[in-house]
Amino acid sequence: MSKVEFKQLSPADFFYRNRELAGFDSPVKSLYTAFREIIENSFDGAEIGGINPDIFVSFKQRSEDVFTIFISDNGIGIPGDKVPKALAKLLFGGKYVERQSRGHFGLGASMTVLYSQITTNLPTRVLSCSRGSDVIDEYHLMINIQRNEPIIHYHGQIPNKKKWHGVAVEVNIEGDYRRAHTKILDYIESTAMVAPYANITFIDAYGILYKFNKVIDEVPKLGEAVLPHPRGIDTEKMLRLIRIARQKTMRKFLQSNFQRVGVKTAQSFLKFVNINPEKAPNKLNHEEIVRCVKGMNTFEDFLSPETKCLSPIGEEVLTAGIQKELEPDFITTVTRKPQAYSGHPFIVEVAMAFGGNIIERSSEPTLYRFANRIPLLYDQYADVCAKIIRTFNWRMYKVHDNSKLAIITHIASTKVPYRTAGKESISDREELEREVRLAMQVCARKLRVYLSRVEREERSKIRISIFEKYMPYIAQFATKLSGKKEVPSLDFVYENK
Amino acid sequence: MSKVEFKQLSPADFFYRNRELAGFDSPVKSLYTAFREIIENSFDGAEIGGINPDIFVSFKQRSEDVFTIFISDNGIGIPGDKVPKALAKLLFGGKYVERQSRGHFGLGASMTVLYSQITTNLPTRVLSCSRGSDVIDEYHLMINIQRNEPIIHYHGQIPNKKKWHGVAVEVNIEGDYRRAHTKILDYIESTAMVAPYANITFIDAYGILYKFNKVIDEVPKLGEAVLPHPRGIDTEKMLRLIRIARQKTMRKFLQSNFQRVGVKTAQSFLKFVNINPEKAPNKLNHEEIVRCVKGMNTFEDFLSPETKCLSPIGEEVLTAGIQKELEPDFITTVTRKPQAYSGHPFIVEVAMAFGGNIIERSSEPTLYRFANRIPLLYDQYADVCAKIIRTFNWRMYKVHDNSKLAIITHIASTKVPYRTAGKESISDREELEREVRLAMQVCARKLRVYLSRVEREERSKIRISIFEKYMPYIAQFATKLSGKKEVPSLDFVYENK
Repeated sequence: MSKVEFKQLSPADFFYRNRELAGFDSPVKSLYTAFREIIENSFDGAEIGGINPDIFVSFKQRSEDVFTIFISDNGIGIPGDKVPKALAKLLFGGKYVERQSRGHFGLGASMTVLYSQITTNLPTRVLSCSRGSDVIDEYHLMINIQRNEPIIHYHGQIPNKKKWHGVAVEVNIEGDYRRAHTKILDYIESTAMVAPYANITFIDAYGILYKFNKVIDEVPKLGEAVLPHPRGIDTEKMLRLIRIARQKTMRKFLQSNFQRVGVKTAQSFLKFVNINPEKAPNKLNHEEIVRCVKGMNTFEDFLSPETKCLSPIGEEVLTAGIQKELEPDFITTVTRKPQAYSGHPFIVEVAMAFGGNIIERSSEPTLYRFANRIPLLYDQYADVCAKIIRTFNWRMYKVHDNSKLAIITHIASTKVPYRTAGKESISDREELEREVRLAMQVCARKLRVYLSRVEREERSKIRISIFEKYMPYIAQFATKLSGKKEVPSLDFVYENK
Repeated sequence: MSKVEFKQLSPADFFYRNRELAGFDSPVKSLYTAFREIIENSFDGAEIGGINPDIFVSFKQRSEDVFTIFISDNGIGIPGDKVPKALAKLLFGGKYVERQSRGHFGLGASMTVLYSQITTNLPTRVLSCSRGSDVIDEYHLMINIQRNEPIIHYHGQIPNKKKWHGVAVEVNIEGDYRRAHTKILDYIESTAMVAPYANITFIDAYGILYKFNKVIDEVPKLGEAVLPHPRGIDTEKMLRLIRIARQKTMRKFLQSNFQRVGVKTAQSFLKFVNINPEKAPNKLNHEEIVRCVKGMNTFEDFLSPETKCLSPIGEEVLTAGIQKELEPDFITTVTRKPQAYSGHPFIVEVAMAFGGNIIERSSEPTLYRFANRIPLLYDQYADVCAKIIRTFNWRMYKVHDNSKLAIITHIASTKVPYRTAGKESISDREELEREVRLAMQVCARKLRVYLSRVEREERSKIRISIFEKYMPYIAQFATKLSGKKEVPSLDFVYENK
């Protein structure tokens, strides 16, 4: 009994055993997660190339509880030789840089292939073509889970006559479509709201076609990959940088390996941590490295992080998207200035929409949450944005009917602090919480101005309607009193009201 | 801009970049997580050997924000040659079997070493000695994060003169002890509540000593490792079993590889999925494997899962622990019968304690959550137990003051459905939710009986006190009325009340 056998798991085996950590738990959730992991890669693939995303999604029932998801995009494509690993090897990915993107765990696509395989034992079909390539690569893939290696069941090449580029994935998933349907549709509708520059065609498992056409042309400029910011560096990262550094002095090392560090900042920082600026990086001893790292997290004169790696939606695009999807009476949006938490820059955007087609049964405002343009539909109670909304006294902002209010939040960051690898809710980092609260206050104040005006107008409408009701009687009475026969026209009264 | 570089991450690198997924986020939480990951291994190490845990924990301030955690146990120890991998290689562990244990991600200890290293650049010191061994192995360990391999800074052996066995870990963590202190103390106190068979000595960073002595001797019988249950098998698991199977027929294969499958069940199941019982397992084609797996999840005549792999706390131990830690006026406990979700057996235990030393400021009942004997202190709002408590109408159960009510929940399972690898909250699987609800109802009904009695007694006390107040006057009046001088004794009235 008291003997323990030890064993090493591959990353694939770990996530196979703990797939709920990546969002694959119930049959409903798994189908939804599979779908969103693929479509998010499609969006990233198009936007990274500055292309207006044109995405086709279809669900088909294959057997009682197996559904075929087919998603194709017009993105930059994955190079043929990289396809097997990119889709059938966990923790292999192209997103491990300091740049905002939808995915960043390197898990999504391969977890989908893995889940498909364990529930249906079928390979996933992938077509891919890089921009400008003459051939389309086709693969049928599974994963050797114990070794975390792709298994290629088929590989062929097709001539690319129509100059297509992008990725198409066909995957079979055991799931509960009937119950996942609403979430999937919600996901696409919400995405259309923040991506009014994309065309999405969706055929659901019942055969119904939905089309979401772009209303603006401009594709968001995707964030650029940047150097790390000194704040948030740990000793591991520092040691890695030192190991590959070619600079001969610490002064130059800092300037070349970190963003926002120029000659002056480097000098004053090295003075702050008491390290000779001319010392070679690889000559630093243990104690100096620790001091340097600690200093980076406390030194106050670093400039705030670069933001060209971020891509907020922008007030204009956000307004256009909300107008298109919700058709409210009033919209206000705010894009806050960039901030940072532990060296990761982020931008908070909030919009509030009121009236019109927004009618929800709940007594809470309807919340649409987004992170790096991904709609978050599960675990709302655990999200920082929901937490802040609960603290608002909406009556103070003249909102007497919460069901008419929709709040849209977007957090863009090189590293969104998700609570789980399933990417469903955002944790309440102090810096983030503060920004979200401020953004909501800005919007809520504008909303109050609007609602006050509406209230005033309504009050004066009531006044006028009373006036309109009694004025004719008064006029008749006055006419009678004056002995005249005919009541003069009252139009001039209403015209000047 | 549109070129993407692909890269493979090791599991260590993945969790280094996403350490918040394993519970290492803020300086407060990280210190707490490090502590609990080590102490949980200590408990597992003792209980697996049927030993009364005797655990020593100390925190020491090393510098402004670096704390040294030292934890030593009297468990079965880790064999010397396995120490480096067990502590400094992620996803390497001894817990990947169907048995209830505190840890099961194979992450905790090595993540602690990793986090220590990236915040302090110091190795972790480990002493280990297996039961009966003559030498104690000492290691100073770090992790090569990019390769997920242990780095051994020092290895030595010390003669084991005092016949010690167990593991001792000394690790340096950058953290915020001041704010983590309450959580750490809460954790130890809660653990003492469900482990009244353990001795825990704790010296906090301020130098204060806390001792939690065992009040019962019996160590819980740890669950045994068992074969998997057919329900919840997926094709990957099935293929692995077939690959290593030595049985010549499907009939025998099923009997030998799954729990609760005898000759009869095997026969009727194979008839159900229309597979020849004499067919060799490795001759099954794709379609048959899928059919067999699907059948396992729908066939209704399997016996319910084995429960000898589970180790509930038991009503007696639970009552003793609660009595010791909370000293309430009333305790009721229930240990439900084992149930299963997707093939994983689980047992729900609930206790309710009322009055006495329980006083909380909140208007909600105080909830103590446990899973496999681990106290869960974070993310309560997201937990299935908290969710169910919110749906209870406590007034119906005669609870008029929620602040006097404490609810203790324990979920024991070979696989607790945690929401995250940080092991803080349990998701609301249908089967689990139902059991928790039923268990709470059972306890709440007993609580109502108790509180009704208390109410009755209080009412009659009030009645009696009124009676006692007025009786002397009536007696005086009656005496006067009768013309007597002396009031007869009233004692007989009170004696018979």
